[in-house]
Amino acid sequence: MRLRLDLAYEGTDFHGWATQPGLRTVQGELEAALATVLRLPGVPVTCAGRTDTGVHARGQVVHLDVDDTVLAVSAGRSESPPVEVLARRLNGVLPGDVRVRRAAVAAVGFDARFSASWRRYCYRVSDRPETIDPLTRRHVLAWLRPLDLEAMNAAAHALAGEHDFAAFCKKREGATTIRTLLELTWARDAAGLAEATVRADAFCHNMVRSLVGCLLAIGEGRRPVEWAAEVLNAERRDPGVLVVPAHGLTLEEVAYPADHELARRAQLTRVVRTRG
Amino acid sequence: MRLRLDLAYEGTDFHGWATQPGLRTVQGELEAALATVLRLPGVPVTCAGRTDTGVHARGQVVHLDVDDTVLAVSAGRSESPPVEVLARRLNGVLPGDVRVRRAAVAAVGFDARFSASWRRYCYRVSDRPETIDPLTRRHVLAWLRPLDLEAMNAAAHALAGEHDFAAFCKKREGATTIRTLLELTWARDAAGLAEATVRADAFCHNMVRSLVGCLLAIGEGRRPVEWAAEVLNAERRDPGVLVVPAHGLTLEEVAYPADHELARRAQLTRVVRTRG
Repeated sequence: MRLRLDLAYEGTDFHGWATQPGLRTVQGELEAALATVLRLPGVPVTCAGRTDTGVHARGQVVHLDVDDTVLAVSAGRSESPPVEVLARRLNGVLPGDVRVRRAAVAAVGFDARFSASWRRYCYRVSDRPETIDPLTRRHVLAWLRPLDLEAMNAAAHALAGEHDFAAFCKKREGATTIRTLLELTWARDAAGLAEATVRADAFCHNMVRSLVGCLLAIGEGRRPVEWAAEVLNAERRDPGVLVVPAHGLTLEEVAYPADHELARRAQLTRVVRTRG
Repeated sequence: MRLRLDLAYEGTDFHGWATQPGLRTVQGELEAALATVLRLPGVPVTCAGRTDTGVHARGQVVHLDVDDTVLAVSAGRSESPPVEVLARRLNGVLPGDVRVRRAAVAAVGFDARFSASWRRYCYRVSDRPETIDPLTRRHVLAWLRPLDLEAMNAAAHALAGEHDFAAFCKKREGATTIRTLLELTWARDAAGLAEATVRADAFCHNMVRSLVGCLLAIGEGRRPVEWAAEVLNAERRDPGVLVVPAHGLTLEEVAYPADHELARRAQLTRVVRTRG
């Protein structure tokens, strides 16, 4: 039986998503909480987006496989559905900086990582003293110079679509850096913060933070609007592109196709992602 | 020369606004930073709303009096206006949980406390698991039962206007508990949180947190809508009213009349506030 969990966490005090010996990670905390609640020695989970150290999530999705008897036993005499009891118990065991927002039995063929059709991240920047807010300082970057969002959107326009994003990625052997950037737009939120929405089928390592770093240089007038396309077309990392700090970045949403498409989508992704 | 500073702070690690020996307070940190930047032994400040331990602010206003020579000397050779240099230097000295958003020379007759025409607070509640967000957990109350905002707004309606709010206040000798509640409304924000907007000419001690506590009991169905008016009319503290935790409360805005009204308003407030 496969379960889907929707998670939110503040990345500040985590060494990223993936388990690392001796370090506090989200996966480590979640798997330990699952082992406690389900009374099992180990419960491996798979996530949709392996966030780096300091990156936050409001819409992380994970799956895990569990024997339905084990789940029923863990729920005890409660009259609520066993998955709801599981979510409640997990939140009782987990530390306050990671929460389970929803738990459900997954549809057949569901794979949190490989079935996903796209991931949406937000990067938030306070670029004026009046918008500095200590209440949000752990997930908003403070930037000392005012940003021209119109210039940034013009530059971002050239990056959208299917491209080889090698210029914005930390290269990994045997993996493609071709991605489809479905959306990259900047807007002011109600509080006056500059907010980037970045949506793609998938991202390679450092990609969102490099894209944002490139556009910040344009937004503050240090580089012309055309620079973004030049960097992209060079297809190799440009030392002039700043990889912005992790704490401004939040994984907001992961989308999946309709249930009957899940298995086919997962199969397709596996093939594409390992293509040279 | 009188200056006005607009402040934002996260109350989590402060023992409230007012200086207390041996405790970390917002006033204490601000006055110490001012002493450092202005090179003076002590710089007393006056605020619009003396927030309790754990209460946050995005729109706190303070005033201080400073000799214009002292201010000019502190600004050094900078070409920016001395008040802007002051704001920048204060933010360089202050810890990250308190920020100066704006500094300006105050109009004649301005008094941060006594000239204010109203204060606006927000109280935020997450009443459903799907809206739990670790990124905002320090300024949003987690409530386990779902709230009926319609019932809460109906109850709040009876509380608006000028009343003796003794039932919702910690009584202080020789001070009136008559206040004008200009607004008390509940709405869902974009993230689905329940958000109370509470606006009054002024508040007595614990008043917002008691009003919210009363309405939460109605919102979760533990008390009828009429209960709020009954509590108000009793004019004495009701042990059934929960004073909700401080961390859900944020001072969002303080409003002042037009410049030529400032002095008259301050004089009027002083008279009213000390009336039996």
